[in-house]
Amino acid sequence: MQDIEIAQQAKLLPIGEIAQEAGIAPEKVEPYGKFKAKITLPVAESPKKLLGKLILVTAISPTPAGEGKSTVTIGLGDALKASGKKTMIALREPSMGPVMGAKGGATGGGYAQVVPMEEINLHFTGDMHALTAAANTLAALIDNHLYQGNTLQLDPKRIVWKRALDINDRALRQVVVGLGAATNGVVREDGFEITVASELMAVLCLAVDLQDLKQRLAQILIGYTYTGEPVTVGQLGVAGALTTILKDALKPNLVQTLEHTPTLIHGGPFANIAHGCNSVLATKTSLELADYTVTEAGFGSDLGAEKFLDIKVPVLGKTPDTIVIVATVRALKMNGGVAKTDLEQENLAALQRGYANLARHLQAMANYGVPLVVAINQFASDTSAELHLLVDLCQQAGVAVEVTDVWAKGGRGAEQLAATVAKSCELNSNFQRLYQPDQTLAEKIQTVVTKIYGGDGVEYSAQALRQLTEFKARGWDQLPVCLAKTQYSFSDDPKRLGAPQDFKIHVRQLIPKLGAGFIVALTGNVLTMPGLPKTPAANQIDVNAAGQITGLY
Amino acid sequence: MQDIEIAQQAKLLPIGEIAQEAGIAPEKVEPYGKFKAKITLPVAESPKKLLGKLILVTAISPTPAGEGKSTVTIGLGDALKASGKKTMIALREPSMGPVMGAKGGATGGGYAQVVPMEEINLHFTGDMHALTAAANTLAALIDNHLYQGNTLQLDPKRIVWKRALDINDRALRQVVVGLGAATNGVVREDGFEITVASELMAVLCLAVDLQDLKQRLAQILIGYTYTGEPVTVGQLGVAGALTTILKDALKPNLVQTLEHTPTLIHGGPFANIAHGCNSVLATKTSLELADYTVTEAGFGSDLGAEKFLDIKVPVLGKTPDTIVIVATVRALKMNGGVAKTDLEQENLAALQRGYANLARHLQAMANYGVPLVVAINQFASDTSAELHLLVDLCQQAGVAVEVTDVWAKGGRGAEQLAATVAKSCELNSNFQRLYQPDQTLAEKIQTVVTKIYGGDGVEYSAQALRQLTEFKARGWDQLPVCLAKTQYSFSDDPKRLGAPQDFKIHVRQLIPKLGAGFIVALTGNVLTMPGLPKTPAANQIDVNAAGQITGLY
Repeated sequence: MQDIEIAQQAKLLPIGEIAQEAGIAPEKVEPYGKFKAKITLPVAESPKKLLGKLILVTAISPTPAGEGKSTVTIGLGDALKASGKKTMIALREPSMGPVMGAKGGATGGGYAQVVPMEEINLHFTGDMHALTAAANTLAALIDNHLYQGNTLQLDPKRIVWKRALDINDRALRQVVVGLGAATNGVVREDGFEITVASELMAVLCLAVDLQDLKQRLAQILIGYTYTGEPVTVGQLGVAGALTTILKDALKPNLVQTLEHTPTLIHGGPFANIAHGCNSVLATKTSLELADYTVTEAGFGSDLGAEKFLDIKVPVLGKTPDTIVIVATVRALKMNGGVAKTDLEQENLAALQRGYANLARHLQAMANYGVPLVVAINQFASDTSAELHLLVDLCQQAGVAVEVTDVWAKGGRGAEQLAATVAKSCELNSNFQRLYQPDQTLAEKIQTVVTKIYGGDGVEYSAQALRQLTEFKARGWDQLPVCLAKTQYSFSDDPKRLGAPQDFKIHVRQLIPKLGAGFIVALTGNVLTMPGLPKTPAANQIDVNAAGQITGLY
Repeated sequence: MQDIEIAQQAKLLPIGEIAQEAGIAPEKVEPYGKFKAKITLPVAESPKKLLGKLILVTAISPTPAGEGKSTVTIGLGDALKASGKKTMIALREPSMGPVMGAKGGATGGGYAQVVPMEEINLHFTGDMHALTAAANTLAALIDNHLYQGNTLQLDPKRIVWKRALDINDRALRQVVVGLGAATNGVVREDGFEITVASELMAVLCLAVDLQDLKQRLAQILIGYTYTGEPVTVGQLGVAGALTTILKDALKPNLVQTLEHTPTLIHGGPFANIAHGCNSVLATKTSLELADYTVTEAGFGSDLGAEKFLDIKVPVLGKTPDTIVIVATVRALKMNGGVAKTDLEQENLAALQRGYANLARHLQAMANYGVPLVVAINQFASDTSAELHLLVDLCQQAGVAVEVTDVWAKGGRGAEQLAATVAKSCELNSNFQRLYQPDQTLAEKIQTVVTKIYGGDGVEYSAQALRQLTEFKARGWDQLPVCLAKTQYSFSDDPKRLGAPQDFKIHVRQLIPKLGAGFIVALTGNVLTMPGLPKTPAANQIDVNAAGQITGLY
């Protein structure tokens, strides 16, 4: 059975019941249809301590289809709830780009899904659309400022703000706007990025309340004057309007798993080209309400988890009690050199070679002093010998490991994982920062590259070198770094799988995200606007006269 | 008090109660927050006859601020309901373009408003965003097709599909996409239009069910092959995906007036650059449920009402029982030559001159054989002498006329109008089509220009002349015409106010909208993407820490 069929056959509880189970008062619940709601914050009248246990789910380096990190997160949440503990799950919102493109949605799979699957994967409660509208409204206001006299003396050649769409659209990466009649505005080079990579998404995910949202929006850098001075949204005078557009998007969204575990899905930055974590507000709300909060960060631990720990944790004010690393036999075999088409065949040698990838991720996460657990996400094609070998390798490395079968069994497929994770959460977590705020940007990037990626060092383009100096002079080097890098390799070359040795990371450009509060470093050839494949998923998606959707996955 | 303050002080009823009053079963109601809902169609198990009376509200030629057509529509609806008749109102959805730009929202004013005002004017239930997403997804799929081998042999120079944003953004009118690396796709000239002018909006407003929506989407023309053959969405194979994206947007939205009259707000094409009417589905639903349906069409009767009668009525299958023409002393004085800054001063001579504009609108609407009523929308600055003169002029012309004061008094300010309209609805309505489907496009345009605008004839550009021949050969001349024209004048020159004589309409281009089922004729200099003013409304909009919005109007 397909994921969408399982989801469509599910019996959902009214969202009011889910809210009640989560401990959210009815007057805080704004229904969006019968099975989705936005939550008015704060959920408690007086600030609550974040006493719940925080479990961060991350993964090895993925195959293009993903390794079931969301699926394991959901199954683990269901299993913890079934064990009698008050549990909530905190996930990211899917982007319609991959839904219409290649990867599909982000609502888990099999019997470990969040529902209503189609609605979450499409418009959900409109957060992504609100971000898109805000990003493009800001761009229109900037171009209008240029056209209407340009009192801020913005240099049209140095506008850094980009337009955004929640779509994979390669043709919009590099465009020229303002062509034609004089009344069509000022001609300049411009570009669109996918909404999940927009700074607005990061701001939404890191803001702690509406006031903070407005302050962060005001701090966003939109460009430079002719004399090279930075210009912000605040100077343009439209932080209030942007906050107004994003007011409701700031409220976390509540849904349920197939097993009715309350799940907050809020914010959706990609982890390769953005910071890859769901919102601080959703995670915080869950920590206030539940004994266990299971959350995930995108792609491998080198991307989402590193950013969770170095960018999100300082704002959240709470460190994880356990980090779960999801591994699959398939992806490790691919990391061990097996072609995508041959992953269904048993290959112990390749698995053993590919284990080096998992080992590198374990090593990376060990930097933070948080207890680790490996969750093997079982696929139907995995052989018993392969699963045994992988368990053995983990045990030899001294890390807790459990095999899960959540796709086929839901929470029941993660019972042992839940027990192991619960035990792990009682161990001493001795969180250490990877780098300190007062280190230079170059030192911070160097630290991520050597300690997390296992690389030798960093090579900067001439532009990036100039920017290091410039940003230091502007006082921006106090900010954490957010490396944009391919998800397929620890290096910046997507073809170097496994645990590559002797590589440098190439930083071609730095992008100050002053509202989000970090500096993006673009590495290798990574792009902030994906493209569609030869046969996009859109060609398979359909809906019948009764409104039933097919072809969404 | 400002409109937004009145709206924020209102006591709203839960949307479930409004639905119940309208006769909509609870299981058909999908709440979006506490005071908005989408309605699952059909509301009745078996198709109902459209027995309710249909009242179409239109207006004279407006000032840039609008003449309170929505306000009168709402007040009239409230008054009809207060008179004991089951009444519903059917309006269009506001666009965020004008909300952030100049004109403000579209939720009425004073004590004749629909609420929640801020939510309706911003994201509402996401219909506009869904249309934007669908329009840009289609564009991305087209550009991807060009890039991935172009099996349809689409000529990149003859793509007619445009990207869309619900934003006033002059810089996006004319752009070049696909610049940079080869992997950024095929370079070509392109442009964005405002979402309300996109064919998708027209399709959503004219579709009678999900199946019809899909068929219409499949028929949309996206461009031509190198050999000049038309290519449609259906040929690209993505009608199913677009229907899926628009599935929920097709459901009408229910809200309430300040006096709790059930109001369907659904679809929002502008009447100057699109067909200017709310959705067929919402109007139909209202006609099934209520004794009186009060609906409006955009701008003056030359635009929205003409298109309502010639484009929407044939799909709706129901003709209006009365047409109400809203007039204001201010706008007539402006049409009589008074400067915008002097409209507050009494000027009977200018009013008398400007009455010619109302007379022309009465003449235009008289073509259809539907009983007419003039509603004078009173402003605080109107003098008693001016109001008397205007009433006299109408009475001399033999048309029913009432003065309303709905801004200050809500439904109470339209009691007499309601009585007169109710009486008018009992008169014989003898609807006649303005033109017949089998007339040529040129004949249809000529008919609109001479009978509705009062012009002498039509001048075509060389391109438009070629298109007339081409469209005839393709069999597209069976479709109705949708003239895109300035709202300020009966002519295509926005400076010729009043009732201009001796003018021709200049058609510069025809655009086939095969999914919507009409041919757009672009006249004069009208643009399908507006721009922002020197000081956009966005600069005044703000929200405080408690989430209260200010500066929205």
